[in-house]
Amino acid sequence: MTQRYKLTLEYDGAGFVGWQRQRNGLSVQETLEEAIKRFCNEAVTVYGSSRTDAGVHALGQVAHFTIVKKTNAYTVRDALNYHLSQSGVSVLSAEAMNDDFHSRFSAQQRVYRYRIVNRRAPVVSDLGKVWWVPVSLNIDPMREAAELLIGKHDFSTFRAAECQANSPVKTLDTIRIHKQEYPGGEEILVNVRAKSFLYHQVRNFVGSLKLVGEGRWTVPDFDRAFKAIDRTKGGPTAPACGLYFVEVVY
Amino acid sequence: MTQRYKLTLEYDGAGFVGWQRQRNGLSVQETLEEAIKRFCNEAVTVYGSSRTDAGVHALGQVAHFTIVKKTNAYTVRDALNYHLSQSGVSVLSAEAMNDDFHSRFSAQQRVYRYRIVNRRAPVVSDLGKVWWVPVSLNIDPMREAAELLIGKHDFSTFRAAECQANSPVKTLDTIRIHKQEYPGGEEILVNVRAKSFLYHQVRNFVGSLKLVGEGRWTVPDFDRAFKAIDRTKGGPTAPACGLYFVEVVY
Repeated sequence: MTQRYKLTLEYDGAGFVGWQRQRNGLSVQETLEEAIKRFCNEAVTVYGSSRTDAGVHALGQVAHFTIVKKTNAYTVRDALNYHLSQSGVSVLSAEAMNDDFHSRFSAQQRVYRYRIVNRRAPVVSDLGKVWWVPVSLNIDPMREAAELLIGKHDFSTFRAAECQANSPVKTLDTIRIHKQEYPGGEEILVNVRAKSFLYHQVRNFVGSLKLVGEGRWTVPDFDRAFKAIDRTKGGPTAPACGLYFVEVVY
Repeated sequence: MTQRYKLTLEYDGAGFVGWQRQRNGLSVQETLEEAIKRFCNEAVTVYGSSRTDAGVHALGQVAHFTIVKKTNAYTVRDALNYHLSQSGVSVLSAEAMNDDFHSRFSAQQRVYRYRIVNRRAPVVSDLGKVWWVPVSLNIDPMREAAELLIGKHDFSTFRAAECQANSPVKTLDTIRIHKQEYPGGEEILVNVRAKSFLYHQVRNFVGSLKLVGEGRWTVPDFDRAFKAIDRTKGGPTAPACGLYFVEVVY
C-alpha cells in the first residue's frame, strides 16, 4: 500500500535553476526529493504541475509524490518543512490524495501574476521580486492590447524557441492589469489565468505589453506582432524575477 | 550660497547597522554621505528624521543635507541613485528646501508599519521582510489591547534600556491592526502614527501584542504590564525585520 500526497508550495526562485531537476544546478524538484528522502528514506519522484523557469517565484505551485511510509498529511507538511529549513522552499499544505490525482494532468487552470514596479528610483526593498521599469507606463493601452490575447489563439509570437509543447495554440481565459500605490511610484500587476501556458508565454507577452505601456508600440503594433505568429516579431522577454506562479485550480 | 535638499528614502535594513554612522559597520547615513561626496566632492552630514535600528526597513525615511554645488533636485535624485547602485538605498525623491527645514525637528508625525506573517509554514518569499509567527493569532484581543496605547502615556514598559529620550512620555495618535490574505495563512499589519517614538517602542509593544494574540496574555495582563511602567514587565521585542518606517509628515 502506498499513499499519494499533494503539496502546495511557496518558493523563492532566485536560488534555483527552475522547477525541473538539472545537471547544472539545484532545482526545486531535487530539493523536495532530497527532503522526502530524509523524512522517510524513500527515493521518489516529485511531479510538479508546471515547470517554472530559473528565477520564477511560486506562491502556490502544486506537486505530488507517492510513498510507502504510514504517516499523515500534517506530519508530511511539518517534517518536510523541517528538512527544507533554509532551502528557499516551504510546504504551505499537504493533503492525502487518491492515486488518480496528478498535479499536472488533473490541473484545470493555472494562475500567474507579473509584478512591475514603475518609478524612476531603483527598487531596493523588493529587489529580485519585481521588474523595475523606470520609464513611465500608461496602463490604458496595455489593457487594450491585453484584451487581444484573451481566447484561443496561436501564441507563437510569445513562445520561446525551447518550448516543447505540441501546439502553439492556447486559450487564455483572463488577463487583468491594474495598478496600485507603491512608494515613490506605482506597481502594475498583470494577473493571468489559463488551462496551460507555453514556455515563457507570460514573460514574453508582458515584455511586449511594456512596449505598449511606454508608447514605443501602439496597440495595432502589438496586434500585428501577435498575428505574425513569429517570435522574432515580439518584444523582449520580461525578467523571471517579476513572475509568480500563484495558484493551480483542480 | 548653499542649498538644502530633502531626500525621501527607501532602504533594505538587512545590510546596515542602522541609520546612524557607527564604527562597527556600514550605516545608511554613511552610505548616503559617501554617495554625496562622489556626486559633488563635498563632505557633508546627512540628517535623518529618525534613527532606525539595524535591520529595520524604510519605505519613506526622510533626510536632509546642504551643499554648495549648483544643481537641481532631479539631478540630486538621479546622481545619488547612480552612486548608490547596489547599495540597498534608493532615493525616491529629492526636493530643494529652505534652510529652516530640518528632517528631524520639522517632523510632525512619523508612520511605522509592522508586518507579521501568521501561518504554520515557514516564510521563504518574504524572508527577512516580515516576522514569521507560526502559532495562530487572534486579532480581536490584539486590537482591544492596542486601544490602550492610544493617547499620552508613560511608555517605559515598551522603552529599550538604551533609549536616550529625555522622557518616557509619548503620545500615540493611532494604531490600526488589520489582517489580509497571505499564501497559506494570513498577514497581520500593525500601522502606527505618532509625533515621535521611544527607542524600540514599536517593536516592544508589537512583541507584547503578539502574546495577547496567541492567548498567553489577556487584555488585562497587557494593561497591567503597560501600567507597571517597567520594561521587565513587557513581552519580548519583536524582530527588526518586520518593521517598516513608512512616512514622515511635515
